[in-house]
Amino acid sequence: MHCPVRHRLRDASLELPEPPQPGGSYRPAVEADGLLSVAAQFPIHAGRPAWTGRLGQDLGVEQGVEAARLAALNVLAQIDRALGGFDRLVRVVHMDAFMLTTPDFVHHARVLDGASDLLHLALAEKAGHTRSLLGCASLPLGMPIELVVKALVQR
Amino acid sequence: MHCPVRHRLRDASLELPEPPQPGGSYRPAVEADGLLSVAAQFPIHAGRPAWTGRLGQDLGVEQGVEAARLAALNVLAQIDRALGGFDRLVRVVHMDAFMLTTPDFVHHARVLDGASDLLHLALAEKAGHTRSLLGCASLPLGMPIELVVKALVQR
Amino acid sequence: MHCPVRHRLRDASLELPEPPQPGGSYRPAVEADGLLSVAAQFPIHAGRPAWTGRLGQDLGVEQGVEAARLAALNVLAQIDRALGGFDRLVRVVHMDAFMLTTPDFVHHARVLDGASDLLHLALAEKAGHTRSLLGCASLPLGMPIELVVKALVQR
Repeated sequence: MHCPVRHRLRDASLELPEPPQPGGSYRPAVEADGLLSVAAQFPIHAGRPAWTGRLGQDLGVEQGVEAARLAALNVLAQIDRALGGFDRLVRVVHMDAFMLTTPDFVHHARVLDGASDLLHLALAEKAGHTRSLLGCASLPLGMPIELVVKALVQR
Repeated sequence: MHCPVRHRLRDASLELPEPPQPGGSYRPAVEADGLLSVAAQFPIHAGRPAWTGRLGQDLGVEQGVEAARLAALNVLAQIDRALGGFDRLVRVVHMDAFMLTTPDFVHHARVLDGASDLLHLALAEKAGHTRSLLGCASLPLGMPIELVVKALVQR
Repeated sequence: MHCPVRHRLRDASLELPEPPQPGGSYRPAVEADGLLSVAAQFPIHAGRPAWTGRLGQDLGVEQGVEAARLAALNVLAQIDRALGGFDRLVRVVHMDAFMLTTPDFVHHARVLDGASDLLHLALAEKAGHTRSLLGCASLPLGMPIELVVKALVQR
């Protein structure tokens, strides 16, 4: 069946990864009365962290953008699995972004645009979202970014 | 037209600012099936940070309270623009607050009351909300506080 | 009246505490159109922090798990008070966890499983949730963990 999301990703030489397995006692996604809550996604590829390190020290802004794109691909993969495709997705509503940074890092928005722009590329008019963004003292496995997405879905 | 929110603010010598423009690939507000999600708001005035620095080092609690009030005014301005006034606002539901602090800072609640009290002043019975609050390693542009609000609106 | 949640807790030698009072200008819980938002809960017992200190320095993983369990009990106590029991609770949807950690702490998931497992023990099939988790620079009163829960309830 034709999937415009996979098609747009393919046009950008990207593909949906396998959605990462939960690393603890929780669900990868929960649907509740028209709201889809996606568990925190990380720059994980094939079950392992693809990026580790602190933005502003170990990683620069461009590397942060790449890590943000990979985490966003994992968000899309979780939505795809939870809903059985993207037809029932009405729109992404909100994305929280937690980044591992030095104390004086200020380029959070540029890094996060890597994830936001990828959502727009893949989801087009379903991608418009609000967001928050902050620098953390630590993140699981020392990864540089974590994305937490809520979306509206057809009941 | 009479707006009780603007009226109450005026009685406290305050006014709704222009809502800040998004600083990246996202929307200032998204309405989804009765929920209004407002993008992270900061102590920005006229397009620039009005406050920068770390609570417990560069800024004291009272300055944090002032920054929290300004960020809350920006939240109100975004709600006003998104809904075309406050008539359709049923109530604020939740506010997350991220603060730039020293490692030993403990007065998060006192700082955040600056924002919560301003919401109560302006919105009266529509203001009652739950909240979370934490100290960050870094925040965009080195600003001391960031507020993330979800509200219930009439469909 | 028979309450299966209290019964399951009792079987594990646990009981619902008194829900902590808000420490500022906010509500302990807000119900909005089928969503219950619970204010941030901490490892507080009898009105005082039961645990303080930084994970990876002052507290080890096992102590973090204990603190997470206590914070989760307070979440349950707030749900119980807000809804007058657990009958109207459909399911927990999402839990954000903010932890006070050293910069190199990586065991966030093991600590948070203390809270997730307690929710499963008490709520059984109503417990499945998504979650996020991060390490903070500071937390209120120097406590090691903060939990922020959203749940679906019958209208």
